Amino acid sequence: MGSGERGAAAGLWQLLVGPPLRAREVSREQISSVQGLPALSLDALTSVAYGPEAIILVLAVAGAGALHLVLPITIAIVVLLAILVFSYRQVIDAYPGGGGAYAVSRGNLGTRASQLAGAALIVDYTLTVAVSIAAGVASLTSAYPSLASATVPICLAILAVITLLNLRGLGSAARAFLLPTMVFIVGLLAVIAIGLIHPLARHAPLPGVSLMPTRALEAVSVLLVLKAFSAGCSALTGVEAIANGVPLFKRPRQRRARQTEVLLGAILGLMLLGLAVLADRWHIGPRSGQTVLSQIIGVAVGRGWAFYGMSLTITVVLALAANTSFGGLPVLGGLLARDNYLPHVYAVRDDRQVFASGIWSLAVLSGVLMIAVDGNTQRLIPLFAIGVFTGFTLSQTGLVVHWRRTRPPRWMHRAVINGTGAVVTAAATIIFLGTKFTEGAWVVVIAVPAFMLLFSRIHRYYQRAGRAMGLGTIPGRPRPRPSLVVVPVVDVSRPAQRAISEALSLSDDVIAVTVAIDAPGQDGDPARDIQEEWARWNPGPPLKVLRTEYSSIADPILAFLDELHAKRQEQIVVLIPVAVPDRARYRLLQNHYDLVLSNALRDRPYIIAARVPMSLHVAGDETRLED
Amino acid sequence: MGSGERGAAAGLWQLLVGPPLRAREVSREQISSVQGLPALSLDALTSVAYGPEAIILVLAVAGAGALHLVLPITIAIVVLLAILVFSYRQVIDAYPGGGGAYAVSRGNLGTRASQLAGAALIVDYTLTVAVSIAAGVASLTSAYPSLASATVPICLAILAVITLLNLRGLGSAARAFLLPTMVFIVGLLAVIAIGLIHPLARHAPLPGVSLMPTRALEAVSVLLVLKAFSAGCSALTGVEAIANGVPLFKRPRQRRARQTEVLLGAILGLMLLGLAVLADRWHIGPRSGQTVLSQIIGVAVGRGWAFYGMSLTITVVLALAANTSFGGLPVLGGLLARDNYLPHVYAVRDDRQVFASGIWSLAVLSGVLMIAVDGNTQRLIPLFAIGVFTGFTLSQTGLVVHWRRTRPPRWMHRAVINGTGAVVTAAATIIFLGTKFTEGAWVVVIAVPAFMLLFSRIHRYYQRAGRAMGLGTIPGRPRPRPSLVVVPVVDVSRPAQRAISEALSLSDDVIAVTVAIDAPGQDGDPARDIQEEWARWNPGPPLKVLRTEYSSIADPILAFLDELHAKRQEQIVVLIPVAVPDRARYRLLQNHYDLVLSNALRDRPYIIAARVPMSLHVAGDETRLED
Repeated sequence: MGSGERGAAAGLWQLLVGPPLRAREVSREQISSVQGLPALSLDALTSVAYGPEAIILVLAVAGAGALHLVLPITIAIVVLLAILVFSYRQVIDAYPGGGGAYAVSRGNLGTRASQLAGAALIVDYTLTVAVSIAAGVASLTSAYPSLASATVPICLAILAVITLLNLRGLGSAARAFLLPTMVFIVGLLAVIAIGLIHPLARHAPLPGVSLMPTRALEAVSVLLVLKAFSAGCSALTGVEAIANGVPLFKRPRQRRARQTEVLLGAILGLMLLGLAVLADRWHIGPRSGQTVLSQIIGVAVGRGWAFYGMSLTITVVLALAANTSFGGLPVLGGLLARDNYLPHVYAVRDDRQVFASGIWSLAVLSGVLMIAVDGNTQRLIPLFAIGVFTGFTLSQTGLVVHWRRTRPPRWMHRAVINGTGAVVTAAATIIFLGTKFTEGAWVVVIAVPAFMLLFSRIHRYYQRAGRAMGLGTIPGRPRPRPSLVVVPVVDVSRPAQRAISEALSLSDDVIAVTVAIDAPGQDGDPARDIQEEWARWNPGPPLKVLRTEYSSIADPILAFLDELHAKRQEQIVVLIPVAVPDRARYRLLQNHYDLVLSNALRDRPYIIAARVPMSLHVAGDETRLED
Repeated sequence: MGSGERGAAAGLWQLLVGPPLRAREVSREQISSVQGLPALSLDALTSVAYGPEAIILVLAVAGAGALHLVLPITIAIVVLLAILVFSYRQVIDAYPGGGGAYAVSRGNLGTRASQLAGAALIVDYTLTVAVSIAAGVASLTSAYPSLASATVPICLAILAVITLLNLRGLGSAARAFLLPTMVFIVGLLAVIAIGLIHPLARHAPLPGVSLMPTRALEAVSVLLVLKAFSAGCSALTGVEAIANGVPLFKRPRQRRARQTEVLLGAILGLMLLGLAVLADRWHIGPRSGQTVLSQIIGVAVGRGWAFYGMSLTITVVLALAANTSFGGLPVLGGLLARDNYLPHVYAVRDDRQVFASGIWSLAVLSGVLMIAVDGNTQRLIPLFAIGVFTGFTLSQTGLVVHWRRTRPPRWMHRAVINGTGAVVTAAATIIFLGTKFTEGAWVVVIAVPAFMLLFSRIHRYYQRAGRAMGLGTIPGRPRPRPSLVVVPVVDVSRPAQRAISEALSLSDDVIAVTVAIDAPGQDGDPARDIQEEWARWNPGPPLKVLRTEYSSIADPILAFLDELHAKRQEQIVVLIPVAVPDRARYRLLQNHYDLVLSNALRDRPYIIAARVPMSLHVAGDETRLED
């Protein structure tokens, strides 16, 4: 491609993602504790859109009477939330480099546990993107049912916008997200307050068919309560994101991150309890085409502007919640790559100083997932919490080990709280696995070990490759040795002259080579012609003419070089003459023997192939060749 | 891409088109005079499927009474056919290298005329493919009306098969085409014979609505007759193809080609006259969903197995007629490219010894054309004959000049016949242009000069480039001069050691360079680290550390090289170390700095960039680096 076209494509891309950034400029993009809410807490906050619903869906099978269990189950979940918030405040202090469960496990629990944490987090992040966007679109289609048929395209469009914003960089994204986040928090707390204060001001029920079974399909059992509890735990996903992303905060980082964590815990707890009280009071059950949250808002404020405004806000913040993963996974990918568990390209920052490979991988994985489940949130929920809770368990267990090891003041106290958290979250993980296995959790049971296996294989490769390349050791002295330079020419011309000049500059041992195609019935003998011309020119190096009856010129040259190497055991430098016109459109008119040849020669370990470019000025009236 | 993947794709392609061929093997694939009918005459023979129809469609607007003019008009066309056959026998003798009108014009009429001939032939060949395939599918849908809705996909599928056959090589194609061609010729002559012998054995008329106007829309005028004549001349397209493809025949080439030309003229003339007599006798008019040929066959033999068999045969041979163009255009493209009128890639034979670029170009152009007209033959007919008849006129005029110049025995006699042919075909061309301009002929009026302009521009470029490259002159002596070798390294490792070794083999003037990215808040100073390691290694060349705050490593290196070049005005050889794992799947795990860098350095005229590959054996348990 010509530089013109390259320039145009690059220009268009820069228009989308912005110009290259200095690392220093990015540090100016770091976030405050309040900005931490839109940047890293939306995942957790917005899980009120599907957490309570998940509880009600489970309980509904036991009939309307079972719905009074929503409130006690929610209280249990909020207690677990408090333990997690406490725990992650410790993680923030102990691991300010970010990485959350992965960093804690690596520091305290060893290789296997850190691989497990890494795999669980990758699964978690991918599911968060898919669930958040799908739930956002579900909220939209609750308000505007005519859009329901376009669910998957809308999901993918939102994913594309979020991906692009993140390729620009998270800092500017976080600032853009602050307003809708605040509207969401204030609006939803207001809805809850209105519902609690005006308990009799009930509005008309919404359209949609009740999905409540007319009679109980199942008795209320311990298993059912456990299932409802574990389903509701999906409301806790995202609590870990702040601890994973500490490096994104302004200094003093740890203090700001801790403040955000507490803020998140308080708001999320309030919302969950408030919604549970209202759901209980108004006997909210599952309804077709209506989310539980949408029903509660509709009953509280009626189906007026407030309802539609709130629905739209929820759609927006849910879509933005997907952003939490885009803040977390690329950083995690960078850590995993630096630890040789992922390809090193995941640790490379692009022009905008973001880990572009991680962003693209997350976009592709979650896009495929949304297409696979047709944008249906409830089909993802069973998969969702397992990864998160595996991470919770590992980080709490890791912290217990950490306290035992470092023994700071009051370490026993801390260890007991974290130990309790570890036991509860481990129990929840096991309940998820047991109750949701056939509903989709088996996917996670396959995916997590698959990622762990991938990590091990990659790690083993890098260890071997590092040893083979002598990384970390001082290599021997360089050993110069004679090099043979071969120049493949197609004619006697100035590009050939230039390439021969270069060859003679580099070595005294230069051979020119050309391919003559023998075709029956052609006029003259091309092999003899070029030999005569060469003799007349007499540039110094000998010309070897390779005759062939096939049309490929690369094959005979490759065979000749192989033979030379077999005979002389020398390094062979191949200099391919090429004329490069100054206008991109003229490059189509050149034959591309140089590209064909350099492609064919690539990766032969004893060949160093280079094109010797020669500018051809053909624009306008002057035509000359520049050396 | 790894060699494994490359091998798989190449293997699949070879399965489709066959293994590489020697030029000699292709000459064995050359054709006899009878094989010349399927290979080069199907275009002309099959024009009986749309030529008579075109006459009838024009005359029909003047009412049923005007249809008696079909026979006299056909007789006039057959006389013109005789002149053309005589004329092209001369062309075959005078220009055995092929190229037809283009070669004759180049030899006798100068640059502009040969460009005109080349452009007209390209348009002609493209239209032939589109018209033949579309007419073949029309014949199929006449017999099986339910397929009518899939017209365009069927057209494209047939095009794909023909393209693939031609990428395999025409010789094997010609042999495969012989049987259907013979069935077609014998079958259609038999249909005509039956029609003529059993004039009273008329079968029931076919279904379909008559498109005959109930009253005359127009009087029979000279203009109408001229329009009908020129429309019917579409039956003569393809007569030139044998002369264009003389090199495809076995020796003695000219004699065989002349035989084929006469054979073609006799069969085509017989068919046209026979069909005209039957159409006149049976008052065949236009009918919806039924071609004229289909009606005649139906009336002659009834709607039994013979009708369906013949319909299918016509479909097949029409589709194969498109092959005539695939025999002609790539050869013409090769001639034009050798004369510097088209990109040189059109003169390059691929592994199967075919001009693959010409084949692909023809496939794409005609595919687009068929999609544009929805596979409707009648929308292409107005465009069709202009290019062909321009070629006829040019080649006859060229022959007149040729006879005047060479003066062989009886040259006056020959010149008079060719002169008559030139006048008649020129008149026909002008009538086409005048009568069909608004119906689509304007496309040709734009396309032909556009191609001519393209030829001129390309020719000018190659002249300039040839001068600039000193083609045809003996260049000066090569001038060796000192070269600076720069080795960009990312770490102290064995690949770096190897690249430095190579650099020292090539020059005494070696500089290593590395990029250190400064990011605020990172641990340590990567610039100092690598400098210390370098000092401990002490390989000889100095290490230049380039600090940057951006993430690109290519930009600082490029800036450094530009600066070096500005200071020292030397050629700079850049040797990029790269470790190449032996398994393709491991290559994903390497960072691709080498590719990023060599892409960025490409086409800087003073830089010769080469990757120094180093095999990394990591498969199985042994891991070593091979020099």
